[in-house]
Amino acid sequence: MRSRRQFIMQAAAIAASPFISTRVTRALAAAAKPKLGFALCGLGGLSTYQLAPALQKTANCRLAGIITGTPAKAVKWRAEYGIPEKNIYDYETMHRIADNSDIDVVYVVTPNALHLDNALVAAHAGKHVFCEKPMEISVERCRQMIDAVKAAGRVLGIGYRCRFEPHHLECMRIAREREFGAPKIIDAHFGSYMGPSVWRLKRALAGGGPLMDVGIYALQATRYLTGEEPTWISATTTQGDPARFSEVEESVVWDCKFPGGAVSHCGSSYNTAGIGYFRVIAERGWFALEPAFNYDGIRGVRSDGKPIDRPATDQFAVEMDDFARCIMDGKATRVPGEEGLRDVRLMMAIYESARSGRPIDLKA
Amino acid sequence: MRSRRQFIMQAAAIAASPFISTRVTRALAAAAKPKLGFALCGLGGLSTYQLAPALQKTANCRLAGIITGTPAKAVKWRAEYGIPEKNIYDYETMHRIADNSDIDVVYVVTPNALHLDNALVAAHAGKHVFCEKPMEISVERCRQMIDAVKAAGRVLGIGYRCRFEPHHLECMRIAREREFGAPKIIDAHFGSYMGPSVWRLKRALAGGGPLMDVGIYALQATRYLTGEEPTWISATTTQGDPARFSEVEESVVWDCKFPGGAVSHCGSSYNTAGIGYFRVIAERGWFALEPAFNYDGIRGVRSDGKPIDRPATDQFAVEMDDFARCIMDGKATRVPGEEGLRDVRLMMAIYESARSGRPIDLKA
Repeated sequence: MRSRRQFIMQAAAIAASPFISTRVTRALAAAAKPKLGFALCGLGGLSTYQLAPALQKTANCRLAGIITGTPAKAVKWRAEYGIPEKNIYDYETMHRIADNSDIDVVYVVTPNALHLDNALVAAHAGKHVFCEKPMEISVERCRQMIDAVKAAGRVLGIGYRCRFEPHHLECMRIAREREFGAPKIIDAHFGSYMGPSVWRLKRALAGGGPLMDVGIYALQATRYLTGEEPTWISATTTQGDPARFSEVEESVVWDCKFPGGAVSHCGSSYNTAGIGYFRVIAERGWFALEPAFNYDGIRGVRSDGKPIDRPATDQFAVEMDDFARCIMDGKATRVPGEEGLRDVRLMMAIYESARSGRPIDLKA
Repeated sequence: MRSRRQFIMQAAAIAASPFISTRVTRALAAAAKPKLGFALCGLGGLSTYQLAPALQKTANCRLAGIITGTPAKAVKWRAEYGIPEKNIYDYETMHRIADNSDIDVVYVVTPNALHLDNALVAAHAGKHVFCEKPMEISVERCRQMIDAVKAAGRVLGIGYRCRFEPHHLECMRIAREREFGAPKIIDAHFGSYMGPSVWRLKRALAGGGPLMDVGIYALQATRYLTGEEPTWISATTTQGDPARFSEVEESVVWDCKFPGGAVSHCGSSYNTAGIGYFRVIAERGWFALEPAFNYDGIRGVRSDGKPIDRPATDQFAVEMDDFARCIMDGKATRVPGEEGLRDVRLMMAIYESARSGRPIDLKA
């Protein structure tokens, strides 16, 4: 039996022919396996409590490996998920993943400012990269990630789970089909309480505060609900408790204008009870989700009293299955690196507006 | 028996004594009647469907007169409320109200830009003035109203009905007593659908669009919920449908910073379904009203599940009774002209920010 690596190299040689696209090549390569092997890179809370359990529910993926800097975690995960020793890496050995045909995708779940470095190693090792949001802490680092994965001929996706969540999809449909007429005002908010944190309150690792971590959901929502990119943004931040918020903002509020005539007013905080919602206020009514951004229990309301009841789903399982399916079928993912970059660019504009005290013209 | 006018003049003479305050004078004058006579100035929808019925429910007020430019309305109101002919005025004869001891208070319910002129006539006639919100269309005109009523030795109040509404009062208490810790983010919104209008879409009469008419409720709420004045404001507006919105904004969103560390994100529109709410997001929870600004049916929610159930009340009856009581007892109203001026100043800053594309530093 040919090894996966040999198969891929052969497929790559075929792809060199001008008559066969790289998409076909990818499809050929991925078709060799019924499930793609995922390696989780970074075993924090999200990997532990969400991604690993979700992988057990996927149709197209399997938890094949881990990359962790904490030996105790390696022992624990090996025991819990039966991960073979050869599929367990630390950040020193991660590059050797190139030789491991069990692993097709590296899912980067490390602190924000490490995403690029991890993705570069994965891409250079010939692996597809799925990266948690926020994609990185600067536009330039997002671009580097996109370029590196593209140069490796692999696929890059960003972990925007709400883009696969049935209530969110239904709201996108309501907005797109203008059930209540044109959206005029979108109100979106996602905040939480962040106690002392290893990295989330440190600018160098997080790139920012609640905006980068949770506010990004509200920002994303205003974009996928309008289906448009904002042309103008104004923001302000607070620092509040200086013990915790010496490096990143405590709270942030921002307004955007969209080319179709809608405006948004949004907020996020690290010093409030956890709360997340959006509401699209349109010409003839409104619709909303609350809680909107939780892992489960999402609830919708329409001003006309009709239900937005959709079956509960494991958002992480669905997003990973979709990413694997896109690779297998050679289709474009709905959450490419370019989508992650757009949000990072907007979040940088929000910080720039707050810092300068001036709105940012995004058409410029 | 002495006439009311004689009594007032005598009381005014007493007040000239350095030992007796004008408050005492007012109390002496008002104590002469069990109920104060209100004249409604402007018989549009609010007077017709809210204020006149509410006056029937008051303890301290009675519908004593009307001022209208529409003879047919005079006939109708005279029949419906048994208003004597001598208490019915038009805008030409309104100054003669000075000689009418039945009328103690003129409630100004005309288009925004006429408030000052009507209030000046009322004040010069020696009457107390209660004025609908927004107080006027410029800071300067608000100042003129305050000065004129003060010079006449009368009391000026602004129709901020929510300041008397039990759910709003309860939310002010929750905020003030820090039941959920310090407020960090306040989200407030009030919008409606405004079809063709005699005056609300005309800048010269309305002074602005949805912000002046309904957004003012959201702005007020952020102020009375924080108990603070904003120090920074940023806003943007849209024009949307150019047929309707050639003179005033279609929608507006704005953000404020408050000195205690809270920030607000707010919105208002004339081109959406009617919707009004606020939510105070604090350190350990949140509380909200929705609908918040309707005449009735106000509902509250707390994040801890405790109720915000308060008895339904006629907000207009309560605000008018309170104003009358303040006059009778010589006490300060919680809604003086200075309060109306503060909102107009902030709304002018919102428009200035939207026009200039720059935030406004309100500390300056």
